[in-house]
Amino acid sequence: DPSLKVFTLNANPELAHEIVEHIGIPMGKSSVTRFSDGEVQINIEESIRGGDVFLIQSTSAPANEHIMELLIMIDACKRASAKSINVVLPYYGYARQDRKARSREPITAKLVANLLETAGASRVLTLDLHATQIQGFFDIPVDQLMGVPILADYFKGKELDDVVVVSPDHGGVIRARKLADRLKAPIAIIDKRRPKPNVAEVMNIVGNIEGKTAIIIDDIIDTAGTITLAANALIEHGAKNVYACCTHPVLSGPAIERIQNSKICELVVTNTIPLGEEKKIEKVTELSVAPLMADAIIRVHENKSVSTLFD
Amino acid sequence: DPSLKVFTLNANPELAHEIVEHIGIPMGKSSVTRFSDGEVQINIEESIRGGDVFLIQSTSAPANEHIMELLIMIDACKRASAKSINVVLPYYGYARQDRKARSREPITAKLVANLLETAGASRVLTLDLHATQIQGFFDIPVDQLMGVPILADYFKGKELDDVVVVSPDHGGVIRARKLADRLKAPIAIIDKRRPKPNVAEVMNIVGNIEGKTAIIIDDIIDTAGTITLAANALIEHGAKNVYACCTHPVLSGPAIERIQNSKICELVVTNTIPLGEEKKIEKVTELSVAPLMADAIIRVHENKSVSTLFD
Ligand SMILES: Nc1ncnc2c1ncn2[C@@H]1O[C@H](COP(=O)(O)O)[C@@H](O)[C@H]1O
Ligand SMILES: Nc1ncnc2c1ncn2[C@@H]1O[C@H](COP(=O)(O)O)[C@@H](O)[C@H]1O
Repeated sequence: DPSLKVFTLNANPELAHEIVEHIGIPMGKSSVTRFSDGEVQINIEESIRGGDVFLIQSTSAPANEHIMELLIMIDACKRASAKSINVVLPYYGYARQDRKARSREPITAKLVANLLETAGASRVLTLDLHATQIQGFFDIPVDQLMGVPILADYFKGKELDDVVVVSPDHGGVIRARKLADRLKAPIAIIDKRRPKPNVAEVMNIVGNIEGKTAIIIDDIIDTAGTITLAANALIEHGAKNVYACCTHPVLSGPAIERIQNSKICELVVTNTIPLGEEKKIEKVTELSVAPLMADAIIRVHENKSVSTLFD
Repeated sequence: DPSLKVFTLNANPELAHEIVEHIGIPMGKSSVTRFSDGEVQINIEESIRGGDVFLIQSTSAPANEHIMELLIMIDACKRASAKSINVVLPYYGYARQDRKARSREPITAKLVANLLETAGASRVLTLDLHATQIQGFFDIPVDQLMGVPILADYFKGKELDDVVVVSPDHGGVIRARKLADRLKAPIAIIDKRRPKPNVAEVMNIVGNIEGKTAIIIDDIIDTAGTITLAANALIEHGAKNVYACCTHPVLSGPAIERIQNSKICELVVTNTIPLGEEKKIEKVTELSVAPLMADAIIRVHENKSVSTLFD
């Protein structure tokens, strides 16, 4: 179908190539480079007039570079008379800045939504938004895919005995419940409490984990502080062993070192954010969202609902 | 006047401090830092409710970082109930991407204008926009200051004999004319021609430069290719010596080495873009736009025209 055009920018070239292979089309010809002074230079090397353009770009680190690349590419596609400009964001950066928690804070997740619309995006396709309100930040259609089925299939394949799925905090219970349902397992919750100000947090565990194989699940793992402390607390409280998993492996700063030194036996992630070479350690397993995203792109292009991909 | 609040971001902290000193007010208390994963974190540490906020930030390299810092800061100010958000852009980056020169190019200078308005800017104050059309890209008021008077005053102070002001190309003649008027000097133009395809350009000089002191003027010097070739051509054609000047010293890539090795005896620039340590060579003289920008900020705050600052 010549009216379907998929382009990669610089955040996820490998994932993007996997996606076009699944769809069975060639990658759109373009380059996103830099002028001598660092400004973004775009070359779209084929006509996109009247086409459904899909731009694949996580706004992962360096987030500002990746956002600006994406905005400038959208602008170029708009001026080149694309019929629709579909922004595929495997990972939506700035999602944690989703509300004014303190005075005079920005709401950058909303700003980025506005910027994408201003540049000319017609539609957004994303995966596991950190905060449910972000979908409503847009005035254009937003389709949200789920990473849990991919993680669940992997753990099913391991045929682990006596599993308990653990949410590292109260905010993650719904996500843990979804994974637990698929694995036909119970859940437990880490209940952090600070007994008095300036006294270390106490990690209480709600639910039975004694002698069980725990799988901690989160959407984003960034510095890995929460998840490694949770893993160690689970082992101390009698869990047999601890897996961890997430959709978006941000893994910044001390994350890899912490995971390496923690009681986590395996960390399972997806490729919404590419693991750099230094993050490809033996403990980390990477699953691909390419088949899911390819299906979603075909459905959007054929004007079908993507919500059926949720199960 | 407590309703006037000036904040610096990370592009021009020194210039911004000079500006508030000229105005005679303290610098607004804020920090623009990064979270562990590189996302921008903003802290505005004083109330700005009902205030006229001025944000000082060139969108110089790293342009994408500086643009995103600025957009997020504007968002924070808007949500903190500032009365007006005045964006002070000593240098407007992406200004050279001001038209579709080839098929499927973006017009990033227009995109950036749209982004600033979307984020919530009420007004723009800038200096020597590369392209005259950029002022019209905005639907909010844009005041544009001029660097020529500052450069002219410096050269007047040198009391040079028998000066000719040289435009490095046809596009720069009006700017050269303005400097020449102030120095009561004639002008000359470098007339580049390519006699046949794939044959090196010939540098013709229109105007009399024989035995004279030439001052080449441009708005931006980026890789310094044009200006150093022009300087060498002027000397070959009989100029006694060659100065160069510009408002915006982008000076990327080989620029400093080229200037060092060229026939240019002195390069005079302004501080709209800070010279990094490695660019502070003896041949380069930096003039400050702080007094001019301070006056303009006071006038905008007092609801007066800034156009009187043009002479
Ligand atoms: N990139 C980031 N890294 C770390 N913390 C962040 C980041 N962006 C926002 N935050 C903060 O994270 C908190 C929200 O996180 P959460 O409770 O997980 O939604 C807020 O206090 C934000 O200020
Ligand atoms: N940052 C940049 N560095 C070098 N060239 C650029 C940059 N941005 C745009 N251009 C190109 O510069 C040309 C316009 O330059 P000018 O003729 O000086 O206005 C266009 O062909 C642009 O594609």
